[in-house]
This record gives sequence, C-alpha cells and structure tokens, in this order.
Amino acid sequence: MLPDLSDPSVIETPAVLVDLDIVKRNIDRFQSYADGHGLRVRPHIKTHKLPAIAEMQLQAGACGITCQKVSEAEAMVAGSEAITDVLITYNILGAAKLKRLKALSEKVCLSVVADSRAVVEGLAAAFKEAAKPLAVLVECDTGANRCGVASPEEAVALAEFIAAQPGLVFGGLMTYPPAGAEAAVETFMTAAKAGIEAKGLAVPVVTSGGTPSMMQAARAPVATEYRPGTYVYNDRSLVSRGAASWGDCALTVLATVVSVPAPDRAVIDAGSKTLTSDLLGLTGYGHVLGRDDIAIDQLSEEHGRLVSTGPIGLCVGDTVRIVPNHACVVSNMVDEILVIGDGRTAPERWPVVARGRIL
Amino acid sequence: MLPDLSDPSVIETPAVLVDLDIVKRNIDRFQSYADGHGLRVRPHIKTHKLPAIAEMQLQAGACGITCQKVSEAEAMVAGSEAITDVLITYNILGAAKLKRLKALSEKVCLSVVADSRAVVEGLAAAFKEAAKPLAVLVECDTGANRCGVASPEEAVALAEFIAAQPGLVFGGLMTYPPAGAEAAVETFMTAAKAGIEAKGLAVPVVTSGGTPSMMQAARAPVATEYRPGTYVYNDRSLVSRGAASWGDCALTVLATVVSVPAPDRAVIDAGSKTLTSDLLGLTGYGHVLGRDDIAIDQLSEEHGRLVSTGPIGLCVGDTVRIVPNHACVVSNMVDEILVIGDGRTAPERWPVVARGRIL
Repeated sequence: MLPDLSDPSVIETPAVLVDLDIVKRNIDRFQSYADGHGLRVRPHIKTHKLPAIAEMQLQAGACGITCQKVSEAEAMVAGSEAITDVLITYNILGAAKLKRLKALSEKVCLSVVADSRAVVEGLAAAFKEAAKPLAVLVECDTGANRCGVASPEEAVALAEFIAAQPGLVFGGLMTYPPAGAEAAVETFMTAAKAGIEAKGLAVPVVTSGGTPSMMQAARAPVATEYRPGTYVYNDRSLVSRGAASWGDCALTVLATVVSVPAPDRAVIDAGSKTLTSDLLGLTGYGHVLGRDDIAIDQLSEEHGRLVSTGPIGLCVGDTVRIVPNHACVVSNMVDEILVIGDGRTAPERWPVVARGRIL
Repeated sequence: MLPDLSDPSVIETPAVLVDLDIVKRNIDRFQSYADGHGLRVRPHIKTHKLPAIAEMQLQAGACGITCQKVSEAEAMVAGSEAITDVLITYNILGAAKLKRLKALSEKVCLSVVADSRAVVEGLAAAFKEAAKPLAVLVECDTGANRCGVASPEEAVALAEFIAAQPGLVFGGLMTYPPAGAEAAVETFMTAAKAGIEAKGLAVPVVTSGGTPSMMQAARAPVATEYRPGTYVYNDRSLVSRGAASWGDCALTVLATVVSVPAPDRAVIDAGSKTLTSDLLGLTGYGHVLGRDDIAIDQLSEEHGRLVSTGPIGLCVGDTVRIVPNHACVVSNMVDEILVIGDGRTAPERWPVVARGRIL
C-alpha cells in the first residue's frame, strides 16, 4: 500500500519521489528489448545517480554502467560493490582528473572516450606505466554536433593513434546520436568499423545511446551496446515524444500550494531549485498529474506558478504531484529522494550520492 | 596577487569562482546608496548561501538577512553567530515546517510573511503558546503576479487578522515588485499603510526588494527597508539590463575546452549542471569573458557548446571564464565555491552551506 501522499503531514514538501515499482518496469522493458536483439545494455546513471538503482539495472542484465564525469564514477563505485564495469563517455583532461581516473581504473574495469589526439595524449601520459591498460573508445559525431570526430576516416586515424600508445588499448566506437538517427549511426559506424578492421585492429564495442529512440535501437545493427539514461524514470519530455506514458514516470515532485492569489492561479513551493528551468523544447515547467487544464507557466527559485484554463480549484495547503520536463536534472538538485513502492508502507529517504559531481 | 586561473593545474574544472574584492565593492555600493536615503538593507542570501558573505553584508551595515525557506534560514543561523535577525519572505505551511520555524524563533529575531488567512492560521496555531511572539508581515502583490494580497484593502484586513492572533504580531508590509515598479510600490504601500494605521495599528516595516531597480529604490519613499539579492555577485542578466558591468560580476565559472570539433565551435566541461538552463529572457547561457564573438548556444548536463562568429581560436585544454546568466542558481548547483581576492594568493574552498535547502 502506498502512503497517502495527499496528506501533507506525511511528507515535507517540496519532495522528489521515486516509485521503485515503475523503475523496475522501465528497466525490464528495455532490457527485454535489448536481449531480444542481442544488444548489451549499459545504462547511464546520470538520471538516478544512485548505486541502489544501478544495482537493479545490473541485476536485470546490464553489462555495466555509463557515467559522464570521473567524480560521478567515483561516487557510484564507492557506493556499490556490484559496480565493476564503468564507461565514462567524456573527454578527460588535466593532471588532477587523470590521477583520479588512474586510481579508479585500479578498482574496476574502466573505459573512456576521446575525440582528439590531445585527449589521447593526456590519457597516454597518465597510463603509460599503469599495471592495467586503459580502454579508450573513439567518440563519433553522428549528427548531434556536440563532441566526436566528424568522419569515419578521422575515427580510423584516432583508433590507430590510440592503439599505438603504451598504456592504452583501443576499446571501440561510441556515439550519442540525436533521436531517430539510426540510419546515420549505421552508416558512420559501419564505415569506421570496416576502416579500423582493415588496419588490423579489432572493434570490440560499438556503443550508442539515448532514451527517445531506444526502442528503435536495433535499426542500427552495427551497435553492440546501448546506453539509455532517462528510461529508468521517464519524464514529461519523453511523454511528449510518445516514448512513455504518465504511468511510466517514476520520478515526480510533490509540492504544496502556498498561495491562491486569483481564481485561475495558484503558487506552489517548488520552483527552479527543484523542477529546474530545463524546457527541452516544451512550453511550461512540468505536468501536474490529473490536471491537464493546468500549466506551470513561471518558475522563480522557490515558487512555481500554476495557471488553469478555468477555475483552478486548489486551496492553500493542497498538494500536487508534478512530472518534471527532465528527470535527470531534478535528481541533481536534491540531496535526497523519497522512495516509494516495492512493498514500502512509508517513503524511505535515499541520499543522491552522485549528485553535483561535476568534476 | 590573483593566482593564474588560465593554468589548468591550478584549479580542477568546472569550478565556480567568487572574487571577494568585487563582492565587497558591490556590497558597499548599495549600502552607501541606502544609507544616503535612510533605507535599511536586508540582503537576500539566496544569491550566495554563505554565512561568511552574510557577515560581510552585516558588517557593512545591513540590519539583518532575508531567506526564502525555513531550511535556508536554519543553515545560515547555524553558520554564523552574527546572524541574529532573519526575515523569511515565504508563506510557511505544514506542521513539520512550523515546528522548525518555532525552534528557529527561539534563536534569533525572526519574522515571516503571509498573504492569506490560511497561512496566518497555521502560524497562529504553532505560536499561540510561544514565549516570544512571531512577527508576520503582509505580502503585497505590486505587479509581479506571484504571491501577495491583490489590494491595499486586503492588506488592511489581513493585518488586522494577524494582530488579533495570540502568539503573532503584525510586522509590516512586504513586496517583491517587478523591476521599475517604484510608482506602483509607492501607491499600493502608502494606501495599505494608511489603512492599517487608521485601524490603530503601527506599520513598523515596509520592505521592498530586487537588484535590477535597487539604485532607484528611493523613488518609493514609503519603503523603510530593501532586500537586494543578486547585487552581491551580479550576472549576465544584470549586465544586459545595464545594472552592472562585467567587472562588477563577482561569480564566474571556470571551464576547460574538451573538444574543438569545428573551426568555429568548441565544447567546454560546464553544462546545465553548473551554468543551469536559466535564460532570464536572454539568448544563450552565459558570457565568455573577453570573447564577445562567442555564444554559448547549447547546454547538455556536462557539456556547453561555444560557437563563434569567426574562427574560435581555442584549443583542447584551454580554459575560459564565464559570467552566467543568473548567479543565484549557479551557487545552488555546487557543494563548494573557490574564493579568490581579498589578498589571497591561492583559491580557497568554501562549502555552500545553504545549498539545496528547499524545505
């Protein structure tokens, strides 16, 4: 039985709630798809930042985890002995971070990415006398226009450069494509893989990612691995893209109405410090569950303004549950979440151990 | 002498830097203006969330501090014995928060605001047997359309209601106006004050706030007190409004270039987890100091994309300093800032003790 979340004495607001029953369903859904298509799953933990949920993902069949920063990986590895295989999908630079990376590589099976010789040279300098070589994947730009080498030819050249460095091994190819770019991924990665193999190098991993298109991942069969992140919680952005329903949204923000200054307007105690200003192309800052008539049209740091198309029908002290635009960034705002579901009769506090790890 | 911040071995990035020399200048500038116009200053600590900077503000002449949430006030009071007078400009609701509020009121001179009978009733129930009565100000909406009573008549009625509650005293009038609304503040507050005094009640405080218009605060002479927040750091939003120059911006984000995928494009290691997605009406996510040609046109959580109108001229490993759109929300992202200035030869780590205090 879930606790009565509409009773304000149960939970001090604003609070970030995570329903573990929904989490489990979300994990199983994609793992099952991936198993059916021979894809390994390496979830990106940026969405939850919680060792306990990483353990659920590993138990369901994930081959390891993905992190974005060294400090994020450190926190996850320190938080669970089950985490033994970590890919950091980031160009890692600078003496301090490389030292931390080396220490981490002594604890787990570690791989990273690079998209330039400068990054590879830094990694090589740090690992040249390491007991265990570091696996480095080449990041490829398949249309997102963020990081990544721009062509299969550049990928081949960088793969060879990596393989020539003492202390490093070439680990494969990585991309973070825009949604729906399976054809571009297939074309780029197939050409890069063939070019690298023609040089006598094996390409052990081709890894792609992104929740919006994850159920079409098999349309790029060159990929051996997929890195979904947001799928574990889902959010308003994914519902708006048709990739999830409100019932698939495991993370919600519970807020209290603190003012009803006009018949069509109410103000809640959750603002950008909880919901964040991320729009992801949407209008408004979240969806009030059960109230399609309400828009969250304005946030300040500690206030959210709700406007309705008719009478808002809320009183001071009422609570509302909100699906945020972007779940990952909400996890990053709070020191703890309240876990419900999985048989709990009261919410349980979990510290978000990898929150704020930007280094 | 400042440390060489362009030397990547000095500071691990991304890092939030605060220059205390600029902070001091910003504090003194407004305190001097307020002193000249007989206005008390009660800075909002949401911008810095640091007891040590609150102490600088108090030492310069501030009469107390403003906080937005009970937990924020708790952290500030626990962090400095110099903080003895706190106004929480928020409707406080719910048994748990009211209990915390009562404990806090035993430690410092405390006042809060209310804009409805429901909020006042909750405060009255919590304080009815308190040794020390709680001062409650009426929040007035002078055009921001967030919280606040809508008319001077409603302010009078709520002031009388507060004054009639055992355990509470009427503390005055509070507003958070939009920028440039001094005339609206003057009209509303003068009428409300006269109405309340006609009922035989004193109006000890009329408090207004907001950094963008702070140097015009005296245009609403009914106000006895002003609550600027962002003025202590300034940011790109205030520079774009003409309220500050780049040299007045005390908080900057130091970031490292991790990829240069095209001649006009670079990617840095600071994304929305550091700079936040707050736009405040601007285009782009911050200003790269010394590089008017660059726009930060896209953020993901750990990446920021820089595009130039010409060749970007940056290499992997270079550092850039960024003035964020909104300083307050950046303070809230990080567990610590690096303090420079005030004679320091190396950056000093300060924990952001009131970060993430949303309750």
